[in-house]
Amino acid sequence: MALIVKKFGGSSVANAERIQRVARRVVESANEGNSVVVVVSAMGDTTDDLIDLARQLTTNPSPREMDMLLSTGEQISIALLAMAVQQLGHTSISFTGGLAGISTEAVHGRARITDIDPTRLHGALNDGSIVIVAGFQGTSEDGSITTLGRGGSDTTAVALAAALKADLCEIYTDVDGVYTTDPRVVKAASKLSAISYDEMLELAHLGAGVLHPRAVEFAKQYNVALMVRSSFNHNPGTLVEEVAAMEQGQIVRGIAHDMNVVKVGLVGVQSRTGNLKRIFQALADQAVNVDIIVTSVVHDEQSDISFTIGEDDLDTTLTTLKSQFPDVQLSVEQNLAKVSIVGAGMISNPGVAAQMFATLADAGISIKMVSTSEIKVSTVIDQDRAHQAVQALHTSFGLDSVQEAVVAGLDSHA
Amino acid sequence: MALIVKKFGGSSVANAERIQRVARRVVESANEGNSVVVVVSAMGDTTDDLIDLARQLTTNPSPREMDMLLSTGEQISIALLAMAVQQLGHTSISFTGGLAGISTEAVHGRARITDIDPTRLHGALNDGSIVIVAGFQGTSEDGSITTLGRGGSDTTAVALAAALKADLCEIYTDVDGVYTTDPRVVKAASKLSAISYDEMLELAHLGAGVLHPRAVEFAKQYNVALMVRSSFNHNPGTLVEEVAAMEQGQIVRGIAHDMNVVKVGLVGVQSRTGNLKRIFQALADQAVNVDIIVTSVVHDEQSDISFTIGEDDLDTTLTTLKSQFPDVQLSVEQNLAKVSIVGAGMISNPGVAAQMFATLADAGISIKMVSTSEIKVSTVIDQDRAHQAVQALHTSFGLDSVQEAVVAGLDSHA
Repeated sequence: MALIVKKFGGSSVANAERIQRVARRVVESANEGNSVVVVVSAMGDTTDDLIDLARQLTTNPSPREMDMLLSTGEQISIALLAMAVQQLGHTSISFTGGLAGISTEAVHGRARITDIDPTRLHGALNDGSIVIVAGFQGTSEDGSITTLGRGGSDTTAVALAAALKADLCEIYTDVDGVYTTDPRVVKAASKLSAISYDEMLELAHLGAGVLHPRAVEFAKQYNVALMVRSSFNHNPGTLVEEVAAMEQGQIVRGIAHDMNVVKVGLVGVQSRTGNLKRIFQALADQAVNVDIIVTSVVHDEQSDISFTIGEDDLDTTLTTLKSQFPDVQLSVEQNLAKVSIVGAGMISNPGVAAQMFATLADAGISIKMVSTSEIKVSTVIDQDRAHQAVQALHTSFGLDSVQEAVVAGLDSHA
Repeated sequence: MALIVKKFGGSSVANAERIQRVARRVVESANEGNSVVVVVSAMGDTTDDLIDLARQLTTNPSPREMDMLLSTGEQISIALLAMAVQQLGHTSISFTGGLAGISTEAVHGRARITDIDPTRLHGALNDGSIVIVAGFQGTSEDGSITTLGRGGSDTTAVALAAALKADLCEIYTDVDGVYTTDPRVVKAASKLSAISYDEMLELAHLGAGVLHPRAVEFAKQYNVALMVRSSFNHNPGTLVEEVAAMEQGQIVRGIAHDMNVVKVGLVGVQSRTGNLKRIFQALADQAVNVDIIVTSVVHDEQSDISFTIGEDDLDTTLTTLKSQFPDVQLSVEQNLAKVSIVGAGMISNPGVAAQMFATLADAGISIKMVSTSEIKVSTVIDQDRAHQAVQALHTSFGLDSVQEAVVAGLDSHA
């Protein structure tokens, strides 16, 4: 008998019929002898509807009250799913994040989980209940309801799996698993049977969209076996674990792209006075996620700095920089994309970056920024060339032909 | 500076515009120097929408999960109202029932408040915030979310007023106050400037609908000054307090009617064996509210028993009686109404009941059951004669002419 945490996103519980399907699926798993904990997001458009309501009242809602408001979305889902499970004749009990023992920082809108007390969940599991937990939320020390922000439900699922020492954490999505790249962009994209945490982390960070990076980090930290699979069929998904068996000959495992990139340039920053630290500290204080940073020393005492951020953070970034560094000259370049190749095999294969640059050059795509890690190379290019770049790289790194290999890999997991 | 608890029902917060109106109203009160606690219900149809969702999944939802589901309605309202208040430039903070320190019995759907720990609310009031609390809900000892059932938001408001030692508890409704009878039934009905707890209790119990009896009981028990007033205007409402000044010459203060009455008859119950107690205990265990009870001893050892219940409780009542007392012969009479006259002056005025019976007889209305207390006389009659009965009694007891007296009374309260 295994203890399995299953996470279903908002589209999987968008209406009564879908909730019933999820209920059947989790009861099926329980009837196979598993202890089942289910983490759910808010139903379909609920969160957007609630945000609309708030916008009718204020342009700048208090983050605490937004959390109070938005956390109702998951609370509705858990109650309904518990009822649907009970209707199938299985005992079930739902818990909000707070009731499930999930403590977070006292930060609203993007709190991090600080602790989980699984006492209540263990009690309910021991009673034989299918346990339903609201994703995306917790409570801070003063008792306020907090939300975890984007990817929060994935993170809830993984954190609960860690706290409960679950055997597996299954993330149900609207795709069959993790693909070599976005199948909407590249037709020849194929599903990976397995991938390492580090690779998944790079792909997740780079906008693969299937799993939130915070969840993957959590999974890596607590060594939680993660399975990404479809809520619409019973196909085996992609297993994310410490070391995934390499697909034969695959140095590059996947290609990710992020269409939502803005490049901000700062010209003539005084280097001596610790400005670099002050700039990025100021942005961090405003919770701006800075991605790629490139600096060049122009004179002894002056630097040019470029960095990328998401489109959403542009207003905050400009306001912060203008108010705190009024003397610095700012430039903004929008409509950019980041295209990245990811693969643990890169570490021992020099020349991968060079092949990437050559492939893009051959396609006539100019590279504006580059960033590398041990297992990925990212390039910033014009947004309208991004899909072309992904297609060219998918071919260049031999991923178009991966299909059979993956299918074979899947069979061994089925 | 007064501490005022203000309660707004679902229709007062049904949309963004109405929420803004409530926000303006409570900020106005705060700007006059008052400490303000606001209790709100769920927005308009939210609760019904949630019940519909549940019904799509199950015919018999678990009460715990219904509470988990329905409590989101008020949680949405409080967050939105807090945002609307903040938008007006006043600090505000919202609390669910549990966060507001409201503890209840571990009964779902109709829990009673057992304790209130006002520490968090006092803290927020001391910070100068307008405090918004979700009505209708609390938490039980095991941490589960509970709801208080019908009239729960009124009860929340009064209970908070008691716990906070508030100077006044204002219940905002869609009417101007408590009327001598339902103005939709009797055009000459007029608003009372003041009424005693006991009179209000009888009127509330009898279906006057403005204030829930549990809330009035709570107010009486803790001597909370209650004001029933309109959320749509600034007219003074009806003050409910320990002893209300009598309107001149008014023995009967108001006339209530309840259209939702069923009479259940049990023929030939063995009296000796404690059956009477067993029957009503069995119904109480199923949370059936039995109202009027009439028994008559037919032989030495057999009684005929009649009692009234609400239409909603009929199924439960019949199921309970048939299963636990299979030998007893049952009769059911539906489509009845209860019409009652209420007034503290009755105690010292015999002949009031006789006048009531004569008035109904003159109108050709036959009385099926009678029940009396010190300050009310209730009659059960055919439902389709109820409005006629109310009209006749309103005239007979001199309430048609009360208008000027009440207006004068109002002036002294303005």
